[in-house]
Amino acid sequence: MSKNIRNIAVLTSGGDAPGMNAAIRAVVRACSFYKIDCTGVYRGYQGLLDGDFENLDARSVRNVINKGGTFLKSSRCEDFRKPEGRKLAYDNLKLAGVDALIVIGGNGTFTGAQLLIDEYDFPVVGIPATIDNDINGTDYTLGYDTALNTVVEAIDKIRDTASSHNRLFLIEVMGRDAGDIALNSGVGAGAEEIMIPEESDSMNRLMKSLKISREKGKTSSIIVVAEGDKSGKNVFELADHINDDLEDYNYDIRVSVLGHIQRGGKPSCFDRVLASKLGVGAVEAILNGTYNVMMGVEHKKVVQISLKDAIEPRHEFDKELRRVADITSV
Amino acid sequence: MSKNIRNIAVLTSGGDAPGMNAAIRAVVRACSFYKIDCTGVYRGYQGLLDGDFENLDARSVRNVINKGGTFLKSSRCEDFRKPEGRKLAYDNLKLAGVDALIVIGGNGTFTGAQLLIDEYDFPVVGIPATIDNDINGTDYTLGYDTALNTVVEAIDKIRDTASSHNRLFLIEVMGRDAGDIALNSGVGAGAEEIMIPEESDSMNRLMKSLKISREKGKTSSIIVVAEGDKSGKNVFELADHINDDLEDYNYDIRVSVLGHIQRGGKPSCFDRVLASKLGVGAVEAILNGTYNVMMGVEHKKVVQISLKDAIEPRHEFDKELRRVADITSV
Amino acid sequence: MSKNIRNIAVLTSGGDAPGMNAAIRAVVRACSFYKIDCTGVYRGYQGLLDGDFENLDARSVRNVINKGGTFLKSSRCEDFRKPEGRKLAYDNLKLAGVDALIVIGGNGTFTGAQLLIDEYDFPVVGIPATIDNDINGTDYTLGYDTALNTVVEAIDKIRDTASSHNRLFLIEVMGRDAGDIALNSGVGAGAEEIMIPEESDSMNRLMKSLKISREKGKTSSIIVVAEGDKSGKNVFELADHINDDLEDYNYDIRVSVLGHIQRGGKPSCFDRVLASKLGVGAVEAILNGTYNVMMGVEHKKVVQISLKDAIEPRHEFDKELRRVADITSV
Amino acid sequence: MSKNIRNIAVLTSGGDAPGMNAAIRAVVRACSFYKIDCTGVYRGYQGLLDGDFENLDARSVRNVINKGGTFLKSSRCEDFRKPEGRKLAYDNLKLAGVDALIVIGGNGTFTGAQLLIDEYDFPVVGIPATIDNDINGTDYTLGYDTALNTVVEAIDKIRDTASSHNRLFLIEVMGRDAGDIALNSGVGAGAEEIMIPEESDSMNRLMKSLKISREKGKTSSIIVVAEGDKSGKNVFELADHINDDLEDYNYDIRVSVLGHIQRGGKPSCFDRVLASKLGVGAVEAILNGTYNVMMGVEHKKVVQISLKDAIEPRHEFDKELRRVADITSV
Repeated sequence: MSKNIRNIAVLTSGGDAPGMNAAIRAVVRACSFYKIDCTGVYRGYQGLLDGDFENLDARSVRNVINKGGTFLKSSRCEDFRKPEGRKLAYDNLKLAGVDALIVIGGNGTFTGAQLLIDEYDFPVVGIPATIDNDINGTDYTLGYDTALNTVVEAIDKIRDTASSHNRLFLIEVMGRDAGDIALNSGVGAGAEEIMIPEESDSMNRLMKSLKISREKGKTSSIIVVAEGDKSGKNVFELADHINDDLEDYNYDIRVSVLGHIQRGGKPSCFDRVLASKLGVGAVEAILNGTYNVMMGVEHKKVVQISLKDAIEPRHEFDKELRRVADITSV
Repeated sequence: MSKNIRNIAVLTSGGDAPGMNAAIRAVVRACSFYKIDCTGVYRGYQGLLDGDFENLDARSVRNVINKGGTFLKSSRCEDFRKPEGRKLAYDNLKLAGVDALIVIGGNGTFTGAQLLIDEYDFPVVGIPATIDNDINGTDYTLGYDTALNTVVEAIDKIRDTASSHNRLFLIEVMGRDAGDIALNSGVGAGAEEIMIPEESDSMNRLMKSLKISREKGKTSSIIVVAEGDKSGKNVFELADHINDDLEDYNYDIRVSVLGHIQRGGKPSCFDRVLASKLGVGAVEAILNGTYNVMMGVEHKKVVQISLKDAIEPRHEFDKELRRVADITSV
Repeated sequence: MSKNIRNIAVLTSGGDAPGMNAAIRAVVRACSFYKIDCTGVYRGYQGLLDGDFENLDARSVRNVINKGGTFLKSSRCEDFRKPEGRKLAYDNLKLAGVDALIVIGGNGTFTGAQLLIDEYDFPVVGIPATIDNDINGTDYTLGYDTALNTVVEAIDKIRDTASSHNRLFLIEVMGRDAGDIALNSGVGAGAEEIMIPEESDSMNRLMKSLKISREKGKTSSIIVVAEGDKSGKNVFELADHINDDLEDYNYDIRVSVLGHIQRGGKPSCFDRVLASKLGVGAVEAILNGTYNVMMGVEHKKVVQISLKDAIEPRHEFDKELRRVADITSV
Repeated sequence: MSKNIRNIAVLTSGGDAPGMNAAIRAVVRACSFYKIDCTGVYRGYQGLLDGDFENLDARSVRNVINKGGTFLKSSRCEDFRKPEGRKLAYDNLKLAGVDALIVIGGNGTFTGAQLLIDEYDFPVVGIPATIDNDINGTDYTLGYDTALNTVVEAIDKIRDTASSHNRLFLIEVMGRDAGDIALNSGVGAGAEEIMIPEESDSMNRLMKSLKISREKGKTSSIIVVAEGDKSGKNVFELADHINDDLEDYNYDIRVSVLGHIQRGGKPSCFDRVLASKLGVGAVEAILNGTYNVMMGVEHKKVVQISLKDAIEPRHEFDKELRRVADITSV
């Protein structure tokens, strides 16, 4: 164990995700286990600039493992993008005797952390937390599994109505660049079609799928649309387009934008366990002298990837699952 | 018991609501108990016109009590509004040997039923099922309790994010004419303000409430808005208005339209029990020779009200709860 | 408003119930609204003896409305049953400047409160909170509606297995003296038979019901048994008895004791709204000079009943629902 | 594609698990996609003996993806253990023109299938479905993720009560040979100690953990105990032992046996997606001429393992997670 680490700070930044509290808890408990101090930073990078710190001990994180959101709060912070903002953040960390920083968040969070590393050589370790699952170097990000269950439960409810009324529902789910939520929740909810940002022909797919459904006599349909879908139309425009283009199908179309409910809720067991592993792993990485990495999970094992690589755009998606989606929606 | 009743038909019409299946089940089981036939009519009044009937026995309704939606399906039916449509419906009922009809739905459903009564003197009994709770003559309509839980669970999730980010959320819930969902879910979710159709000064209320919240240093707020709110603005316009009018508050405002998830989902125990009571009550009313009424529940007892009175506009709302809302949101 | 009331204390006692936190919140907020102090007492009557008090303001109860259990905690307190214990409690209340006390709990809680009234003429108001719904003077107690949903969701899960395996399940639910949970959850879950403490012939009912089910060819059955059932056998002994007595039916019987999960969980919207009404009502009753009553709800209105009457044994049960249960389980 | 496969049969056997219906659906849909027949077999191996078959098409599996249990039902079948029983099963399969069989279940199911392979060279492919996650050759079995969420939600509820009353709760969860449910749900629920079958010193662990908790002043504790725990005591005996051995701690101990609710419920998104992948994979394996394997998932990819290897006892457990459990429960 590194003798020089006496105090580790932890913050959450960017969009909140279920499991953030469980990850903070694991960081705090691991610090307690290894008998070092843990400094909680409120409101993400803004709190670094404001010196909004609080010492956290094992009891500070009682009864938070099952809470959505983040009790340390999160925020966007324009000032941290400026060199003088980061100077202030660094000074506050040093002043508080913090030896290393754990940041819990997504791509933007890690990009900010990288600047702190580059400019001040301050030791940082990242924990991936975003419902979008769009981070390199980890099979799963915190909050993703919970969000899938939230989406699938919502679509189950909408399916009740769709089936009762023989309707076509267009359901927008989160995912600006990554179709993971749309593809997995779409398969899980038994959607008739799924539109994801990684595919450029989503509009053709949709129209073809609707025609096939019609031929088969399907009377209700669920279409899941990622918000980053590349059709060039939002869900409301899609509805109009279908009505115009397939006028004789006489669809009773409804639109549902699931929105912010996707970010909240109690974390699933999967996310709580993952958060516990990554939180402990992050503290142990620091104590072992490994900095400037993001903790991840690959094939159920905790792994590390350099923060630089973690923030590179991710391109692949689960093509095998796309194939399964097409087969099971026949 | 009336000796003339050998066959009771049942249909669901209008917007679907959780508990409709449980009500159908109770009707079918009660027919079975009293050893009379039960005819299921698919797709509401449309099914009456199409003669889309199926004989239902006790086994037909196994495992439906906990399902959302309606397995008999529902639909809007333009043709039933025309005299020749109703003639066809009546003829089909007679042809199938149906002696009385139970209709499960809301205001529109009962208005249709009243025409059948007026023109053909056909015996009809109504069961109130709509998440809006906007029917005279019953404390509760089927689906309302479930919808409240669905809304409150959704707002709980959004509160996670609101608290994490110090945001103001405007949440639109169902209720075109009645604020029951907004008022009860708003109190249940601990909303800072609630805007309902029954009050004309909702905009003033809102602005005043935001100013008080700000003075008290509240950093996140949930505003619940019924879709029938009389402010003259929809939730998106409200967000713009707040941003303009309270510019220096520098709110980070988000909007969420809960939409169709409010109609679906497993019925709550309350709705299942209510459906069972009303379904049995409807069959027994018919067997006792009481027609052209809606079954309702008042102070936990099953009661009857004439269909004519049931479809009158309802005006009162729970003013006492509005007062409680104002006190608990301080 | 009574000018003499400056400080109201609140405690929770007895078995915890969902909605207790929402009731505490409403009491605190109402005190804040009426600009009087609110003293939280930890661990029920034990906290009165220990002087375990904390001043509560509107912010103390943020984010508790949707939490199960009670953040003021609860406990059994032997010492409060002794005169010297109550003397100490009274002295501590006076010392802290408390003018009136709100107790949230069930029968035992109110019995304790009555002693404080009788011996020291200390103003007390009760709020009924127990999942059993076994209190006079109110249609519903706090926690009851939530518990019904918890039980029904659990039985829905067990039904999945029962249906898959053609099994007979005996499910024990709470309710020592009152069958409200068993009867309502049994109807809500579509149970084939329900055994409640208010009926002495539950064993005959059960055996008769099983024989009828068998004749009808039912392959799986759910029997809901209140823990206070008067058959003289617990659920495990009932299973043995069925196996012995109906040996040729060759049942594959399983037993499930739902246990403590029934007390926990997020309160339903119904319980949150009820808690808000009763909490505000309790404070306003005190301010209006009405003491030594329990707040209740009858036909959706907040009402009052003397504590003496509230703690009398309740005898009636919903016989109409028992009849509905018999009809819908055919 | 193998030209010889015209008809694939599918059955579910052993304890039911959430996701079985989703797997059946994927099998049926894949058969439909590849234009071959699919024969549903009711009640597992018993249905093979009884010839209880039904042709399934794409519509047969509408609206089952989100249902717990198995609509094909399951059963134990003593007769299939006898050679003459298997002869009958084989004859029925041939008679129905079935070319290959997909069995969905756990260890016992696959052991039965292996006999059919060994004795009749009948092509079989297995899909692992058991909440215990105790099968070689796959990272996850169907139903396991859902069961973890069910257990964690139940413990969350019990935690409400435990916290409110300062109690010690012993909670028995499923897992005769494998501690996966106990370990993961224990970490997810923030349990103070976890007792699993893979460790022989669970009793020492427990007593040590309780002493440490007491020293730290913890007032409530959750202990998760796998049913296959090797302490030699069941949860009720454990409670007595703690009361005797730590008498001066004066614990208020409660026991909860979660039981059959762990098997039921809507499958999680994870289980629905996994079921879809494995179901499609099983059909494609057969069409590609690969038999006598179990489909599994490793590092998110569908893989195959010989049935012989799949049914070997599994020995390893997640020791890293045990370490994380010890650290996060400080």
